[in-house]
Amino acid sequence: MNSSIIRYILGSVLKTEAVLMLLPCLVSIIYREPVGVYYLGVSMLCLGLGFLMCLKKIRNSVFYLKEGCVATSLSWIFLSFFGALPFWISGEIPSLTDALFETVSGFTTTGASILADVEALSHTALFWRSFTHWIGGMGVLVFLMAIIPLSGGSNINLMRAESPGPSVGKLVPKMKYTARILYFIYFGMTIIEILLLLAGGMPLFDALATSMGTAGTGGFGIKADSMMSYSPYLQWVVTIFMILFGVNFNAYYFMIFHNFKKAFGMEEVRYYLGIIAAAIAIVFFETLSLYGTAFETLTHASFQVASIITTTGFSTVDFNLWSQASKTVLVLLMFIGACAGSTGGGIKVSRFVILVKTLGKELTSYIHPRSIKKIKFEGKPAEHDVVRSINVYFITFMIVFSASVLAVSFEDRDLITCFTAVAATINNIGPGLELVGPTQNFGLFHPINKYVLMFDMLAGRLELFPLLILFHPTIWKDLFTQRIRRRKQ
Amino acid sequence: MNSSIIRYILGSVLKTEAVLMLLPCLVSIIYREPVGVYYLGVSMLCLGLGFLMCLKKIRNSVFYLKEGCVATSLSWIFLSFFGALPFWISGEIPSLTDALFETVSGFTTTGASILADVEALSHTALFWRSFTHWIGGMGVLVFLMAIIPLSGGSNINLMRAESPGPSVGKLVPKMKYTARILYFIYFGMTIIEILLLLAGGMPLFDALATSMGTAGTGGFGIKADSMMSYSPYLQWVVTIFMILFGVNFNAYYFMIFHNFKKAFGMEEVRYYLGIIAAAIAIVFFETLSLYGTAFETLTHASFQVASIITTTGFSTVDFNLWSQASKTVLVLLMFIGACAGSTGGGIKVSRFVILVKTLGKELTSYIHPRSIKKIKFEGKPAEHDVVRSINVYFITFMIVFSASVLAVSFEDRDLITCFTAVAATINNIGPGLELVGPTQNFGLFHPINKYVLMFDMLAGRLELFPLLILFHPTIWKDLFTQRIRRRKQ
Repeated sequence: MNSSIIRYILGSVLKTEAVLMLLPCLVSIIYREPVGVYYLGVSMLCLGLGFLMCLKKIRNSVFYLKEGCVATSLSWIFLSFFGALPFWISGEIPSLTDALFETVSGFTTTGASILADVEALSHTALFWRSFTHWIGGMGVLVFLMAIIPLSGGSNINLMRAESPGPSVGKLVPKMKYTARILYFIYFGMTIIEILLLLAGGMPLFDALATSMGTAGTGGFGIKADSMMSYSPYLQWVVTIFMILFGVNFNAYYFMIFHNFKKAFGMEEVRYYLGIIAAAIAIVFFETLSLYGTAFETLTHASFQVASIITTTGFSTVDFNLWSQASKTVLVLLMFIGACAGSTGGGIKVSRFVILVKTLGKELTSYIHPRSIKKIKFEGKPAEHDVVRSINVYFITFMIVFSASVLAVSFEDRDLITCFTAVAATINNIGPGLELVGPTQNFGLFHPINKYVLMFDMLAGRLELFPLLILFHPTIWKDLFTQRIRRRKQ
Repeated sequence: MNSSIIRYILGSVLKTEAVLMLLPCLVSIIYREPVGVYYLGVSMLCLGLGFLMCLKKIRNSVFYLKEGCVATSLSWIFLSFFGALPFWISGEIPSLTDALFETVSGFTTTGASILADVEALSHTALFWRSFTHWIGGMGVLVFLMAIIPLSGGSNINLMRAESPGPSVGKLVPKMKYTARILYFIYFGMTIIEILLLLAGGMPLFDALATSMGTAGTGGFGIKADSMMSYSPYLQWVVTIFMILFGVNFNAYYFMIFHNFKKAFGMEEVRYYLGIIAAAIAIVFFETLSLYGTAFETLTHASFQVASIITTTGFSTVDFNLWSQASKTVLVLLMFIGACAGSTGGGIKVSRFVILVKTLGKELTSYIHPRSIKKIKFEGKPAEHDVVRSINVYFITFMIVFSASVLAVSFEDRDLITCFTAVAATINNIGPGLELVGPTQNFGLFHPINKYVLMFDMLAGRLELFPLLILFHPTIWKDLFTQRIRRRKQ
């Protein structure tokens, strides 16, 4: 195991976080909030540590998938730990576990909160909370790749560990440029949303926080009632941008280069929009009796469906009060999730389409046992290895999911709370049903279960394996024996 | 498609059912219940139809997996339809849908009932209900194979469609003898259970019905309170026999030939017993405060765990009142199910073990990408094709499961009722939680949802694909065009 490069990457991540944390400092100056000094202090701490960790030269830059996974998952743990410090030190979130939960929830773009009264927070803290969504949405290592020259072509192993979806979409041969293009699209779309929200009369601070939450498909609200009190225009802008940020970014890349045929022909995007339309239709007819007009019903149905399938987690109504069929639709959407290569979570539409096609292929093989037709996706045959890894992903997902539900059950709350709390965290959504519904929060859980749910959030964001291999004994034996060997030399 | 052989098999199944239905007639004579004439009538009807269908010679005996699947699923549908007629005609179950539900639930060894007052039924009906469990447990086509000479070696395709588990266990080269050995073990163990129950003072009729329900891992009780009012001795006998009938029958085959080392060395059996022990331990500590003594707690914990993992569905307490962790354990056991090659349902222990091993192998491949270690099961490497088919099975199971939960949700009952109703039927268990808990029944569902749940019971018993291919358009086109072609000749 090449531990020196892992150290170097972690150091760079800390330096990046130090710089990013200056933004909430700026906010504290504008709003004259003394709480800003804690952010400045932690920023300096990160900077110092980062420099120390990058001081020693990298012995060699060989970099395999294993190192990519370890570096990625440790980066996210470091990022969350130091990101949580200002909340804790400032006393705005008195418990370290709660501060960690909130920060992990932010970076993983989950949006599940332990806060009962979010409006009591300072502007600085609210900004940092929403900003973690924006950073976590596209990924901090993708950001690093865009700005600093890491060791050659092996960057793909970092990208593979951090990017959502069954296969890594390399837009252009060089990872550095792929990362830059992704951040360019991401930044541009966020700016457009901010402008459209401002045009609808939303205050600047709200527009910034909401847009960052939408872009990262995070879902932290800055109001206690999430998006309920905003005008229908603002709700529709957010609905549309949630859906847009859940689209595979490859589609935007094609559009930039005027390849509209390829952009609109993407199978995953068409299924994604089809599922959204079907879900809205069901919820619309099921909730029509609850709201005054067809327009209001459509607004709420569309908003909630978009919010859940893209795993954002904003809400305009308490959908816990909806009919069971509507709630079941939302629970199913939680698992399907957004497109691969978007900022959304969940199992991903492309994986689901391939899983369903696998079923179809199996049926055909019962009828024509000698048929060797391959599954087609996006117009070309899906590689055997991709199909296999999707199967394994789904199985692993279900095992981690079941184990987490069992762990959370020991607190003796109802099954729906346990089930949807895990579903909402592992899929990076935010709200679930019952005691973790849209008007509730996650503060009620025992600290141990908060750690279980934090694990689920990270496992969901990093797509399981990069985090799970940290629990493989070989990894630690490897790091440990290497250190001993070095000392002996 | 060779439709003449399918017709011949269906005819044989009807003739078999005609003979089997004479047993309840006998019961009606003993108890002097006039209801017996309906059973005799339906028996004659089956006999007549069966003879008509077998009249025409079989053109050729070529028999592929496709024909095996279609013959099996149609057999089960025929069996259930004619089996339901006496309930309906006699007026003991006034609605045909309900009578069908009860019979499908019986043959598939589910044990989910629509009856609010089971004690109001005649002895004849109660006997037939429990007898369907016994017939369905080992499978009616396996029975046919044991007694009549079907066309040569292609019988494996029938066995493959009807037998539970990822791969067909051929005990001896000739299927006919395999089928006979299986029925010999099945019959022998049922007799031993009857004797042990009689020794504990259970009336003969109760002992017969209970043993048939245990053997088939069915779970229809003949009392309104299932097994609650029986003595601890009787409850323990049933507990032990439920566990025994959930063991892979290959183990008994090895024992008959004194190969104890091989019998006790079976990996699946050891995992099965390990899971049972772990589940009992958790439930024991979680429910200790509910019952007077440790022995009583152990009795109830063991009974319920054995009943759910073997998918039997008897109960000695209302576990819907247990703590959430205990209930979550039971829900997870519902999905794991019993061993392959047993009479139990669920996904099967062997499949789960291989799924978990798949996870482990994937983790290793992240660390050693060039490792090509195969998954080992039962001491030898698992074939690629077996692993693949288990993956596909699991995926298909989850898709059918989710679609069913959504369908049932439209009735607007709570999610736990919908979720566990589907879990209890697709895994062939019987009771679920909340409105379908052990003291409740399935009568509350809308007729459409009763058909959805019947589909789930059949899909679960036949392990999905044999039933699902009935919905593949090719199958019907095939049967239809063949008929036209024949007419033209």
